[in-house]
Amino acid sequence: LITALAGGVGAARFLTGLLKLVKEEDLTIIGNTGDDIEMFGFHISPDLDIVAYTLAGLADEKKGWGLEGDTFRCLDMLKKLGLETWFNLGDKDLATHIFRTELLNKGFTLSEATDSICQALGLRVKILPMTNDRFETRIRIEEGLVHFEEYFVKREAKDNVLGVEFVGAPSARPAPKVVDSIMKAKLVIICPSNPIVSIGTILSVDGVRNALKQTNAKVVAISPIVAGAPIKGPADKLMRGLGFEVSAFAVAKIYADFLDDFIIDDQDASEKTQIESLGMRVKTTNTLMKTLEDKVRLAKVVLEC
Amino acid sequence: LITALAGGVGAARFLTGLLKLVKEEDLTIIGNTGDDIEMFGFHISPDLDIVAYTLAGLADEKKGWGLEGDTFRCLDMLKKLGLETWFNLGDKDLATHIFRTELLNKGFTLSEATDSICQALGLRVKILPMTNDRFETRIRIEEGLVHFEEYFVKREAKDNVLGVEFVGAPSARPAPKVVDSIMKAKLVIICPSNPIVSIGTILSVDGVRNALKQTNAKVVAISPIVAGAPIKGPADKLMRGLGFEVSAFAVAKIYADFLDDFIIDDQDASEKTQIESLGMRVKTTNTLMKTLEDKVRLAKVVLEC
Repeated sequence: LITALAGGVGAARFLTGLLKLVKEEDLTIIGNTGDDIEMFGFHISPDLDIVAYTLAGLADEKKGWGLEGDTFRCLDMLKKLGLETWFNLGDKDLATHIFRTELLNKGFTLSEATDSICQALGLRVKILPMTNDRFETRIRIEEGLVHFEEYFVKREAKDNVLGVEFVGAPSARPAPKVVDSIMKAKLVIICPSNPIVSIGTILSVDGVRNALKQTNAKVVAISPIVAGAPIKGPADKLMRGLGFEVSAFAVAKIYADFLDDFIIDDQDASEKTQIESLGMRVKTTNTLMKTLEDKVRLAKVVLEC
Repeated sequence: LITALAGGVGAARFLTGLLKLVKEEDLTIIGNTGDDIEMFGFHISPDLDIVAYTLAGLADEKKGWGLEGDTFRCLDMLKKLGLETWFNLGDKDLATHIFRTELLNKGFTLSEATDSICQALGLRVKILPMTNDRFETRIRIEEGLVHFEEYFVKREAKDNVLGVEFVGAPSARPAPKVVDSIMKAKLVIICPSNPIVSIGTILSVDGVRNALKQTNAKVVAISPIVAGAPIKGPADKLMRGLGFEVSAFAVAKIYADFLDDFIIDDQDASEKTQIESLGMRVKTTNTLMKTLEDKVRLAKVVLEC
């Protein structure tokens, strides 16, 4: 049994490779819900969705978000009606939000809604939201606190990051099976996702970090930072804004209290000794995932830990 | 000042012609909300929308419903997710329902939401829902009572109609300005719409029928029945199912207590004397509206009453 902590696109890419090597039924994915946002009355879960879409083979891999071949007719009309339309909402993508929101309004939990979406998409892999409670990642910029998606999509990650706040974190309980899936796994994988706003959110949910320390599973992470820069997303700005150095070593420090193995890119081999001094094994490999072969190869390295 | 009682497509076509002759600001339209339906969590107002879309020049006139050039990507995806998708929901059309539902959820009335939609579409004409209270037209078929849209769209109007029920009618109050717009008008037009499920619903709202009797306005109707058949829609089945004859005369009887003038098609000239015996003036003309010229010509006949 394998459990993976996942953010969005980077994690989804890695997991595509992993699922060429392990059975869907044996994999549980704990997804980040800190990016979840209410928009036009819908509950949108960007990270849960991109993982599900990618694993179902429906994602637009070139664009890096959304569903392949999606259109934006509804969004165009919403704009015509005078609504704020900075959040990219495809016509097909919208159906997922409609479905999820209807289930939530009927009293189902986000776990149950996510399960229904996965089943409808034909997935046998289990995707668990980290929590069913309200949890919202806010970024402090000069103008004040804004929702992560507002910082990332609307403001195009251009602001100086002065801080990060996880609204709801103190009272957010892990969703059913989250802690259990970590405790019962043989291998826990921390996907190459943003260590602060993707993995950091999951780690902040009560009991998760502790489970990672206590589990008998081997805990392996893949560095999302290669040669001092994130492969995707605003991790560098976020890390720098919070006073972290932007390096594999800095990521390793964040995970040091529970990590057994850390996989870093060949380009960062010079950091190996320094990271090992934190008390973890380090493997160097090519971590860039351009082709499916790249993804499978990286997954193989993880499984061989 | 002119006030029109309107159903869906037939009314919208007529009103397009009327607005070539009168100023938008001088026209108030009272729309049928008996077809309104909750679908996927949205409040959908089919008749209010088709009138607004048509007058804004956005309707798909050929298809007879929806927005021109609309696509159905979201609906396709909802189907893939396992939802019932018999209700035709275009991607652009959806934006109107999202906008309306958000306004209603924020506590605005259907009147206010309709106003916002009209303004956003650039309309200066006033469209009033007949009521802001719950009102639902149900059709009794052999299997029981079904929502009008279920009878009409899902079951393609194929069932024998055993009866019609207006759920909520006894307690539905007219929306603001509805009664007032009838009382203050110089001319009230009953559009060529279904006399039972489009106009009949409006007439059943407390105070509306009485206002039509009391107003000093001239009240003029255009028959939706030509040569024993409706121009559009299931009016014949509905009328027959309720024991009415399908004729201009039968429609005239439904409106007899408040109607001053009734405009019937040349093809029904033989009914003229019979209808006049109900105590109203009758004008015969070509009531078929194929071109914009047809619509304007018919509107001219109404204005000359």
